Amino acid sequence: MNAYKKLKTIFKQLSNLDYINSIMLWDEAVMMAEGSGEARAEALAMFNGITQKMFANKKNQKLIEAAKNEDGLSTWDKANLDLMEKKYIRATCIPNRLAEKFTQEHLIALQAWRHLRNQNNWRKFVPYLKRVYKLKREIAKRQSEILQLNVYDTLIDEYAPGFNQANIDQIFNGLKQTLPNLIQTVIQKQSTEVIKVPIGPFPIAQQKQVGLEAMKLLQFDFTRGRLDISHHPFCAGNPADVRITTRYNENEFTSSLMAICHETGHAIYEQGMPKEWYGQLVGNVRSMAMHESQSLLIEKQVCSSLAFYEYMTPIIQKIFGNQEAFTAENLYNNITRVKPNFIRVDSDQLTYQLHIILRYEIEKKLFTDEISVEDLPACWNELNIKYLGLNTEKNYQNGVMQDMHWAGGDFGYFPAYSLGRLIAAQLYATFINSEPNFSEKLKQGNFQPLKNWLQENVYSYASSLPTQDLLKQVTGKTLDPNFFIEEVRRKYL
Amino acid sequence: MNAYKKLKTIFKQLSNLDYINSIMLWDEAVMMAEGSGEARAEALAMFNGITQKMFANKKNQKLIEAAKNEDGLSTWDKANLDLMEKKYIRATCIPNRLAEKFTQEHLIALQAWRHLRNQNNWRKFVPYLKRVYKLKREIAKRQSEILQLNVYDTLIDEYAPGFNQANIDQIFNGLKQTLPNLIQTVIQKQSTEVIKVPIGPFPIAQQKQVGLEAMKLLQFDFTRGRLDISHHPFCAGNPADVRITTRYNENEFTSSLMAICHETGHAIYEQGMPKEWYGQLVGNVRSMAMHESQSLLIEKQVCSSLAFYEYMTPIIQKIFGNQEAFTAENLYNNITRVKPNFIRVDSDQLTYQLHIILRYEIEKKLFTDEISVEDLPACWNELNIKYLGLNTEKNYQNGVMQDMHWAGGDFGYFPAYSLGRLIAAQLYATFINSEPNFSEKLKQGNFQPLKNWLQENVYSYASSLPTQDLLKQVTGKTLDPNFFIEEVRRKYL
Repeated sequence: MNAYKKLKTIFKQLSNLDYINSIMLWDEAVMMAEGSGEARAEALAMFNGITQKMFANKKNQKLIEAAKNEDGLSTWDKANLDLMEKKYIRATCIPNRLAEKFTQEHLIALQAWRHLRNQNNWRKFVPYLKRVYKLKREIAKRQSEILQLNVYDTLIDEYAPGFNQANIDQIFNGLKQTLPNLIQTVIQKQSTEVIKVPIGPFPIAQQKQVGLEAMKLLQFDFTRGRLDISHHPFCAGNPADVRITTRYNENEFTSSLMAICHETGHAIYEQGMPKEWYGQLVGNVRSMAMHESQSLLIEKQVCSSLAFYEYMTPIIQKIFGNQEAFTAENLYNNITRVKPNFIRVDSDQLTYQLHIILRYEIEKKLFTDEISVEDLPACWNELNIKYLGLNTEKNYQNGVMQDMHWAGGDFGYFPAYSLGRLIAAQLYATFINSEPNFSEKLKQGNFQPLKNWLQENVYSYASSLPTQDLLKQVTGKTLDPNFFIEEVRRKYL
Repeated sequence: MNAYKKLKTIFKQLSNLDYINSIMLWDEAVMMAEGSGEARAEALAMFNGITQKMFANKKNQKLIEAAKNEDGLSTWDKANLDLMEKKYIRATCIPNRLAEKFTQEHLIALQAWRHLRNQNNWRKFVPYLKRVYKLKREIAKRQSEILQLNVYDTLIDEYAPGFNQANIDQIFNGLKQTLPNLIQTVIQKQSTEVIKVPIGPFPIAQQKQVGLEAMKLLQFDFTRGRLDISHHPFCAGNPADVRITTRYNENEFTSSLMAICHETGHAIYEQGMPKEWYGQLVGNVRSMAMHESQSLLIEKQVCSSLAFYEYMTPIIQKIFGNQEAFTAENLYNNITRVKPNFIRVDSDQLTYQLHIILRYEIEKKLFTDEISVEDLPACWNELNIKYLGLNTEKNYQNGVMQDMHWAGGDFGYFPAYSLGRLIAAQLYATFINSEPNFSEKLKQGNFQPLKNWLQENVYSYASSLPTQDLLKQVTGKTLDPNFFIEEVRRKYL
């Protein structure tokens, strides 16, 4: 196992560099003053060039080939080696200068996005986005030739390995057939509910306290992580050092609380990775689709439940002071209200899927040259009216500029949210079968049964199993969107 | 200039890596949860190994040799090349594994120091300190052989190039002859002054506000930097992204304010570096001795003056609410009170020098094997009683464990503070000759004349001149401790 052992050392080193990169990106989004952006982008581009060069070393290819013939590799070792090879193939087809250029340009575009979104300034944002799009497309094109996928499938495969336009189209078509009617029915049903909207302001310090209480409930390990503020909520770092962020709006606290719950879902998945595989690819979270399944499971199944609000309401009352709106049922109704919203991350669970389908369809058009970057606002508006009935003309900040993904070059990422939501539904349905009284426990602040179940059935496998295999092992089936449809029917009708 | 041009590119890259390293260390001290420490130490050790390897590449030596024979190099280019060569020599005599080991162990020791100091636990701290000391000594020993200096001079030269035990002994002997009597006289003189001690608590948020006002006065550029909290105040980052820290004690606000002023002095020096040389050694701050001269000039000459408190008092009154102690004269008397203190960073300007002399003499003994790490507390106590009249027996946290320097492996650093203070006195005396009304301006919140003077006479030279040459150019003399003695006599007698 000489070659494999050497590879393990090299990948451990690469993992250390990834860790540094991730904390530097966190720092940039959370801590760094804006005037340092140019120097930061240059430094990280150069740093990523080093990582890329170290990784793309021809020696590694030889080691991978040699390791394939070595005896004594466990299942995990073999999975690790497969992941090494795939990552190697993806990385080595990109020239160093292209990788560096992409790093630099996407950081600059993200910096621009942060203030241009606030200014609703699409026109100024276009050149940044065009540069990032062009570079990412060039990268994907080179990868696609070697992976023998088309360009957009290559992007999807990066975030949701095992999925592609063919199987996603099928799933999304199903959702498109079911959801619009379901949404209308639910809206009609909910129209008779009287909801009391909590009245702000809700000071940021107090919102943070509430968020920290939710994180405690969800067993976030504060000795290995922290909560901060950024323009767009995210989770960074690695299993040894997880950083999550949220954003606060003083008029309204549930949006920030739900973001914290979502990111905590990511975080406890990271923190649940097996320590003995720290720094190896097989010891990482499986994929972004699985990552989103874990964040959405926490956000939607756990923290958008009546039981969660039964536990949180006394805490909310204590921190914000009492008001009429602070009953568990009212807060639950408030959070489960179905109503088309401009903003994806603030959307309910039903219209959320349409947000993703919209982005997915736009990206497909973009990567088949049906539209260009300049056409994005018009295309967005057309589909937004079609799916959500909301006009975003000239309202860029609540339309095409709302997400950081494209500025960051993360084209092809969005489907992972939807797939994640469906995976979460399937996993949770299985969990609830084995633990039908979980709501009662959660109500009392006991998250342990689900934490144990996730640790045992999901986290502990890290990247050792393909997602579909894991699903089959845990739930008896590969991905089946009916679990989601059944769940929301049960919940909303 | 082909070889020199290549070197510039390589050193720009190394500077980018230094920047990343510096922000990661800042993050560790300011942001990171303690449980992530081990992973962080491993990652940074490995990262520093990469930097070291990249730097120590034999190719660089050839480029340096080739560049020496190239035509068309400006004075700055030549200074840059000299600095490259010296840095190269220092780095290449250390094996990669030793460098990595040192990085890892000093980070672990710093982590241990943070909580063991709080616990006053010297016994548990010893093994950490011994490992760091041994590794740093090994590094210095290897460097000393090539630089043809003795081991302790090698360490001093790293922080205060141009200085060594021979000239420092001479300076310190002078101070030791003058200061003890002067201190007694001043204490006697001040004994008739009635000082009203400001009465706390002073909430941290308000202390921060006061600190930020001082930073604004001193023209800290907030678009390229920030202020945070750490166990020990420090300044990190680089000219494009400067991070300063302080620590707060709710019972007392001047200690934190002075730390902010001190670190702001470091920060504006960094921020004043010439942009066109960003990323080159010659474009960096000159040395730690010069760095300390700039921080101490701000802390002592500017912010420990009556004029500073005349400006700050209304701000202090506004933020904390008024109290009897808040008059400019009383706050000034309070801050200029001479009284032996256990803690170096909280000490007055006269006894401060004795703190440094004490540390310098201990380090000399340590590096000539007159004492070992285990003997440090006893040796500290003996000298502390001799110079300051204060017994530190068993009081490790206010004695031998008070500074982070040794845990961080920064042996040989302390003299730079003292040299910095003397340099500051000499520079400031020259400035005041050209701007005798500066106090009047400062009182009105106008720091501009000094900022301009420092920018023109100090900052703008970056590392292009040896410290002694710069002093001669600006003040007409190489370092002369009499400027300091005269200054304090004038101020205190």
